Amino acid sequence: MYIGIDLGGTNIAAGIVTKDLKIIDQDSRPTLLPRAHSDIVKDMADLCFDLLKRNNLKVSDIESIGIGSPGAIDSVNGIAVFSNNFRWDNYPLPEKLREYINVPITVENDANAAAYGEYLVSGEGTDSFIAITLGTGIGGGIILDKKIYRGFNGAGGEIGHTPLIYGGIDCNCGNSGCWERYASVTALIQQTKDAIKETPSSLMAKAEKVSGRTSFDAAKQGDAAAQKVVDKYIEYVAAGVAGIINMFQPEIIVIGGGISKEGDYLLNPVREYAKKHTYGSHNLPLTKIKIATLMNDAGIIGSALSSVR
Amino acid sequence: MYIGIDLGGTNIAAGIVTKDLKIIDQDSRPTLLPRAHSDIVKDMADLCFDLLKRNNLKVSDIESIGIGSPGAIDSVNGIAVFSNNFRWDNYPLPEKLREYINVPITVENDANAAAYGEYLVSGEGTDSFIAITLGTGIGGGIILDKKIYRGFNGAGGEIGHTPLIYGGIDCNCGNSGCWERYASVTALIQQTKDAIKETPSSLMAKAEKVSGRTSFDAAKQGDAAAQKVVDKYIEYVAAGVAGIINMFQPEIIVIGGGISKEGDYLLNPVREYAKKHTYGSHNLPLTKIKIATLMNDAGIIGSALSSVR
Repeated sequence: MYIGIDLGGTNIAAGIVTKDLKIIDQDSRPTLLPRAHSDIVKDMADLCFDLLKRNNLKVSDIESIGIGSPGAIDSVNGIAVFSNNFRWDNYPLPEKLREYINVPITVENDANAAAYGEYLVSGEGTDSFIAITLGTGIGGGIILDKKIYRGFNGAGGEIGHTPLIYGGIDCNCGNSGCWERYASVTALIQQTKDAIKETPSSLMAKAEKVSGRTSFDAAKQGDAAAQKVVDKYIEYVAAGVAGIINMFQPEIIVIGGGISKEGDYLLNPVREYAKKHTYGSHNLPLTKIKIATLMNDAGIIGSALSSVR
Repeated sequence: MYIGIDLGGTNIAAGIVTKDLKIIDQDSRPTLLPRAHSDIVKDMADLCFDLLKRNNLKVSDIESIGIGSPGAIDSVNGIAVFSNNFRWDNYPLPEKLREYINVPITVENDANAAAYGEYLVSGEGTDSFIAITLGTGIGGGIILDKKIYRGFNGAGGEIGHTPLIYGGIDCNCGNSGCWERYASVTALIQQTKDAIKETPSSLMAKAEKVSGRTSFDAAKQGDAAAQKVVDKYIEYVAAGVAGIINMFQPEIIVIGGGISKEGDYLLNPVREYAKKHTYGSHNLPLTKIKIATLMNDAGIIGSALSSVR
């Protein structure tokens, strides 16, 4: 058995994961940023011990622990190199947690870990797999040759920050027009709000709080303004996906995050666009585009299994 | 010794290449498209025999032949799957050439082969290397784990067709706003022509024929309109490079093609932009951005050496 720890800006989640990718128990605590690194590590350790105790397990039942953390991570040397939110500055996170629990411990970038979890469950053993999460931003992970692709410095796979409309909306990464400024849930909510302002008679205006679902729900009820928002949003998603396909031609792409609950309503137009707008659509097999399956559990499962070295 | 054949839309070039990456002799013939596949193969064979003869070599002195061809290539099975220009339609190119010369023969996408050639010479043995050629379009090749990265269907690495300004200038690939519509030499020439129309008093207007050098030459002589063209063009190049770095964080990127003769005049602002606009610029080593070294020879050398399996 393994433990996976999904360290997020809001919650620290941990779970006990079996070899066949099942979470037998999980729990979480608030991250309470900004906070001393040592306090975060202590909470991680407490979470692990709580989980072990209530499942009648001993430390020796755990083969390894994997941590998924935001930021630039040197997973080879076990260093949290940099994160704005967590203020990592070459912090040896696994070593610090090992002071509490003496098993092999690794750290991996959280998006990479989640992508690896999705790969293990939905990857069909392929050599080229990309997971895209449409959330607050756009997260992603690239699995090549059955391994997480990290780039030479561990910071690869920032697929949300490739250009979609260079010179467009400013991004907090310092660029303008990054893909996530158009195709994240945050972007969709803004696009919905803009449309409500423009068309106050739209069904969308009746939503108590505008969310990523507002435009999709109204569009399904026949609202024309909402349909326009949805069509444009899906095109933004699809244009980014097509660019990724032209670059990688991965065998499988999975799309996760809240919006992906829309299923084929989202995927079918993305597939159609990708078929029309990518190389390789002549005579060649096409990238399979699917909905992610693990969703929120991907972080815990992927982190846990990425600790198997 | 190996033979590398660089099959282009204008010329078929071939060269005898040594193990230490030297071309000892090379020659070419016009491709004369559109033309029967069998005639192209016969010309390729004739070129090989001419080269062998005038260098007093026998077929048995050649270990293998590598062909670099445009289009979607299945290099594993030796099939030219698709090309608009050459009208490949699952054509077994190596098998056909082997009817003339019975040595192991492989086929690889031409941009991948050229990138592999650059990698062998400038790759410093790294595990992540990307070659970008600013030419009529933007070609590229991705070398990961010391091997050409092709994607699952052989069509990967089309880096010129990732979006830069989605919804922008129409591209002949069916998309709009692809990177190569802004950062290829073709694009630069158009940008120069547009600037001449707008500022007829510019030094650029004195050029007999507008080329990729026109704006760079005039800018170096202090022409303000030309400087504006150059600055904007370099920014387009840099924005695409930054996107590639955020995706791959490769250890080395080389930039080739005619414009790359500008050297550090081109590279320094690209490096500066990339440092400012990519992840990993905090605490992490940065991608090395260099000028390609082989240039026109990359196709022959890369094709030759990609036949070593």
